[in-house]
Amino acid sequence: MASSSENANPELRKDAVWNRWVIFSPARAKRPSDFKSKSPTDPNTNQQCPFCIGHEHECAPEIFRVPPRDPNWKIRVIQNLYPALSRTLPEPQHAPSGSLQTGFGFHDVVIETPVHPVHLSDLPPTEIGRVFVAYTERIQQLASHKSIQYVQVFKNHGASAGASMSHSHSQMMALPIIPPSVSARLASMKDHFDQTGKCFICKIQREDLLIDSSTNFFSLVPFAATFPFEIWIVPRYHSAHFHELDAEKAVELGGLLKLMLRKMSLQLNNPPFNYMIHTSPLHSNGSELAYTHWFIQIVPQLIGIAGFELGTGCYINPVFPEDAAKVLREVKVPE
Amino acid sequence: MASSSENANPELRKDAVWNRWVIFSPARAKRPSDFKSKSPTDPNTNQQCPFCIGHEHECAPEIFRVPPRDPNWKIRVIQNLYPALSRTLPEPQHAPSGSLQTGFGFHDVVIETPVHPVHLSDLPPTEIGRVFVAYTERIQQLASHKSIQYVQVFKNHGASAGASMSHSHSQMMALPIIPPSVSARLASMKDHFDQTGKCFICKIQREDLLIDSSTNFFSLVPFAATFPFEIWIVPRYHSAHFHELDAEKAVELGGLLKLMLRKMSLQLNNPPFNYMIHTSPLHSNGSELAYTHWFIQIVPQLIGIAGFELGTGCYINPVFPEDAAKVLREVKVPE
Repeated sequence: MASSSENANPELRKDAVWNRWVIFSPARAKRPSDFKSKSPTDPNTNQQCPFCIGHEHECAPEIFRVPPRDPNWKIRVIQNLYPALSRTLPEPQHAPSGSLQTGFGFHDVVIETPVHPVHLSDLPPTEIGRVFVAYTERIQQLASHKSIQYVQVFKNHGASAGASMSHSHSQMMALPIIPPSVSARLASMKDHFDQTGKCFICKIQREDLLIDSSTNFFSLVPFAATFPFEIWIVPRYHSAHFHELDAEKAVELGGLLKLMLRKMSLQLNNPPFNYMIHTSPLHSNGSELAYTHWFIQIVPQLIGIAGFELGTGCYINPVFPEDAAKVLREVKVPE
Repeated sequence: MASSSENANPELRKDAVWNRWVIFSPARAKRPSDFKSKSPTDPNTNQQCPFCIGHEHECAPEIFRVPPRDPNWKIRVIQNLYPALSRTLPEPQHAPSGSLQTGFGFHDVVIETPVHPVHLSDLPPTEIGRVFVAYTERIQQLASHKSIQYVQVFKNHGASAGASMSHSHSQMMALPIIPPSVSARLASMKDHFDQTGKCFICKIQREDLLIDSSTNFFSLVPFAATFPFEIWIVPRYHSAHFHELDAEKAVELGGLLKLMLRKMSLQLNNPPFNYMIHTSPLHSNGSELAYTHWFIQIVPQLIGIAGFELGTGCYINPVFPEDAAKVLREVKVPE
């Protein structure tokens, strides 16, 4: 059992999902409950913006909306006006070889609400569930491109977490490669499976790391969390592909995400944050499905990345996961 | 030959040193010459600080100074007052196994000048050379600990690049593990060597990527640079370990580092930056020495890391390396 008191010595823990060491260094930190964002997200003022309802013509082309063809839409999936990858380049016919390939791919935006000042965590679970379903539908469309290997769904909330628009949105990047962290995760999860015969994520729950749970999902701070107050939301059932989520479970997931975002905002002073959906490559072979297991990682932006992290790929986390989990478990969320 | 015009299509390039893909996406960017830091480093005001000469008693214990025992010191190597690792824990007797180990290690600070308002790039090459020699001497001391496997030397300049003190300093972290990015680099360099019989870094120079050069060193923007205007300084001669640098070459290296920092400051509006010395594990086996080659990576802080990078480990660089190299080659530095 790991130590976790406020005066604990530094400790190195290896994250079994990405197979990397994290340094826990509580001596540098305030008490876990004293962590607050120094740059809370600005209130979402009700300015006009191209993502607002009625400004659709100022955006790049729409891919679909929810409900379909409804002028009173709830969600729009659109092209990114400044895409990092190009959907107009010829689709590569082969897997990448060598050290160069054209930047074919898709970079889409999911506008989560028609109304400017509403944050994702303000929506009811049913509407957050609809956002998840929109992700799954777009991934299924993207899977028809045989050269698209992985779709990264992510949300940047707050300018210092990388959001260039304050209107609530998330992004989807469809890549013609399997990105480095995904390859590392697959290799590490495969090693664990080969050694134990079990999916690592299926066995990840631990009482002292648990935050909250529902019928099909639970949230925890992982044993070797890279960042302070990092949260994972994990399905209890074994599933390799996020995009197989059904509408009913999506609403339940929406409820747990809402609770986590509200707890994080209350405890940490409305920090900028990112979340990432970690799933499996689109065209997985059958064996991968046994050892990969999708989950959502939520990272509040409380500390920066500097020379040590850039040089080593090793992170220093000033809060022990047990302590962060206890703090988050105990946050009272007003009804 | 890669495309590099301002209106080029996005392109994926694989970095052969760390074996990871980078997305080059010029359509999102300004012209390369228009990149400027939005948060330039504050001028180094002449306030009193514990790193200033005369305030030695306010610091954690000194390890050594240059010149030795001189009250008019030029450089001090001291313990970090808030170390991420503990030098007082018992030294582990075995290489780490499992997913947990105590946080034994050393976290030192190198005060590069006794005078507060002086930046590293203000020093003459001889004095920057002395800073490099101080690094090598401290690494040689740390190498006597058999459980210390890697020493990461790095510098954070400017608050948004992670510097908590404005007085010019760098840091050294002596680790009981081989960190993830170093393992990845060794594996990738070994693959290249096994396939070609050559050290990849020995063959990295390319005319269109070159910035400047001296007798024993050159500077370039690497083919698959992770960050815009990232610069590498590379020894021409094959050498696995930075800490074998001699005093004469250290002065030459100091001159080239000074030139790169001044060019970066002039071109990019005095950006916050990090540099990292990428070297080999201390207790390398003989075969590693053939394919590893130390170098310095300088990263100006111009763009942030957000959900996409956190999720995928894949970076989006808005400036083609050929364009960045051309801009930096042409910067005129006043005498």
